[in-house]
Amino acid sequence: MLQTSAPLDLAFQALADPTRRIMVERLSRGPASVSELAQPLDMTLSAVVQHLAVLEASGLVRSRKVGRVRTCRIDPQAFHAAERWISERRASWERRLDSLGAFLDETAPRAKGRRRT
Amino acid sequence: MLQTSAPLDLAFQALADPTRRIMVERLSRGPASVSELAQPLDMTLSAVVQHLAVLEASGLVRSRKVGRVRTCRIDPQAFHAAERWISERRASWERRLDSLGAFLDETAPRAKGRRRT
Repeated sequence: MLQTSAPLDLAFQALADPTRRIMVERLSRGPASVSELAQPLDMTLSAVVQHLAVLEASGLVRSRKVGRVRTCRIDPQAFHAAERWISERRASWERRLDSLGAFLDETAPRAKGRRRT
Repeated sequence: MLQTSAPLDLAFQALADPTRRIMVERLSRGPASVSELAQPLDMTLSAVVQHLAVLEASGLVRSRKVGRVRTCRIDPQAFHAAERWISERRASWERRLDSLGAFLDETAPRAKGRRRT
């Protein structure tokens, strides 16, 4: 019934780690080499490469090696899917709260009317 | 340097599971009891309660027991934090692409001009 490796699973899983979010923050400001990504992180280059592999598997980041330098960049599509999922849920409960508000606006005067009689 | 149990870690981790996303989808349409949450899911009530515990630990969902019924509902705050994080990253690379576009618009005529001379 449920796919465990669906794109959204991988995207949210990738974003659940603070190191990977730092890498994504860096890449949202522009492409970067693996060394540039590693620069602010207090860990080995090998650990950074592992985090990069998770980000690439999720589709959030793409990388390309030219000569000896691997350059990484954001791939917006997986981001949009994750953002859309959250904002659609929010829209759903906001619609419900709006309906509830409209219902209360409609019924409150009638309730007051009943109280007056 | 990095907090592993930061609110965003827990929120994205909670959303990385398809069962929990189904539960959140249901709750975004209105509060529900644990049995109502379990109804469309092909799993034991105990497994559903475990998923609910992850959602509550992340702050995405709150529940309250009145009598024998535990009623669950969305807590929008953690949602907004996750949504904001993603949309700020998107805004960041969109700004960068806009600047790149403006730069190309500005330089392209000059480049053409140079080619003409």
